[in-house]
Amino acid sequence: MTKQVTMAAATAGHAEGGTTLNAFDNALLAAGIGNINLIKISSILPPEVPVIDLPKIKLGALIPTAYAAMTSETPGETIAAAVGYAVPDDPAKNGVIMEYHGVATRAEAERQIHAMLDEAFRVRGELVREKRVFSVEHTVERVGCALAAITLLADEDLV
Amino acid sequence: MTKQVTMAAATAGHAEGGTTLNAFDNALLAAGIGNINLIKISSILPPEVPVIDLPKIKLGALIPTAYAAMTSETPGETIAAAVGYAVPDDPAKNGVIMEYHGVATRAEAERQIHAMLDEAFRVRGELVREKRVFSVEHTVERVGCALAAITLLADEDLV
Amino acid sequence: MTKQVTMAAATAGHAEGGTTLNAFDNALLAAGIGNINLIKISSILPPEVPVIDLPKIKLGALIPTAYAAMTSETPGETIAAAVGYAVPDDPAKNGVIMEYHGVATRAEAERQIHAMLDEAFRVRGELVREKRVFSVEHTVERVGCALAAITLLADEDLV
Repeated sequence: MTKQVTMAAATAGHAEGGTTLNAFDNALLAAGIGNINLIKISSILPPEVPVIDLPKIKLGALIPTAYAAMTSETPGETIAAAVGYAVPDDPAKNGVIMEYHGVATRAEAERQIHAMLDEAFRVRGELVREKRVFSVEHTVERVGCALAAITLLADEDLV
Repeated sequence: MTKQVTMAAATAGHAEGGTTLNAFDNALLAAGIGNINLIKISSILPPEVPVIDLPKIKLGALIPTAYAAMTSETPGETIAAAVGYAVPDDPAKNGVIMEYHGVATRAEAERQIHAMLDEAFRVRGELVREKRVFSVEHTVERVGCALAAITLLADEDLV
Repeated sequence: MTKQVTMAAATAGHAEGGTTLNAFDNALLAAGIGNINLIKISSILPPEVPVIDLPKIKLGALIPTAYAAMTSETPGETIAAAVGYAVPDDPAKNGVIMEYHGVATRAEAERQIHAMLDEAFRVRGELVREKRVFSVEHTVERVGCALAAITLLADEDLV
């Protein structure tokens, strides 16, 4: 796309809902990204793109996003979602984003992300300069969703 | 993305096909969106974007679309897909799009969309100014698909 | 989107990985598209867009891509992924892309793509001027992925 990505922002949220799609919508709202359009990407942080706190994004904006979401209709079940990124030593190289969702605790989700990022850097022959993981867990009452996301943003996406 | 969404258009279609992917392709053709590239979004109608009748879109255009599709290879089974949108009283706020697909009748699919939109507005604390649902059902002969979609369009996407 | 697609490029790859997501990431790297952001599309080749050898794409670029990926954690299983495109006689009309993934050999995957493309052209009432299929198979050791993709590119996506 012609969009010039100049920053990224990570977030996570969890919620109950009347249906799995409403639980997903409510988790997006809890994460602060419920009123934009997510376009799912697989999952590269472009070179020299800083990861910042979630800014105010235009309502309805089309935002390329790496995300993981887990919904469950099993009361009592603990579900988790996590995303993480790692940035290489070489600023000319891209970073990598990994996602995880499942019936798991937050700690287990984070462990998976770390392992996946480590392998991604090992196979690329790059050293990790910076690595962060964002995760959330949710214990289901009736219908629940756990969601974690890294959005790729352009200046014109912000309010 | 840099695309400026200025209108949206809803449509629905159903078809048989030789494979599930061909049934999906044929349902897209029946819906009038079989020769464009759909990019799946989750699922916001930007503020002040009217929903119009499906216009003529450039062949191969990249079109952000909220859609639901149900395919089935069980002869005799009735499947349905639906999308709906609701627009709030406040024109500065965004609308919401919801999708449903399943082994269901058209009436059941529509009921689900209404309930999901109502919850989405309740949690956002907005009143519904306008709400519409687009749905289709299909009784499978061999391999069938039911599909409903709301496309987000820019002026330059049109012929 | 405002992106002007001027060329397309097909590729395929397969790999093992420590997790299914890493196997997918490694298959993308093997295919030469592991350091870009794929945006999944369904699946039209715009008119007069040539399919070329994979060029060097900017790291982290957002690239609309029709792709098929099959992952498996069953040692000894043979999995395959394929994509193919067909272009019509009439240069003003769009081409079609089809994807396949499954527990299958490469030959079976290719046979499926040919059949799907033939049906897509039959229902559109177009004659095939050019047709090509790109496929790969992988026999799983521990966790494997087979992937095939056709990327839609703009001039500004290239290095």
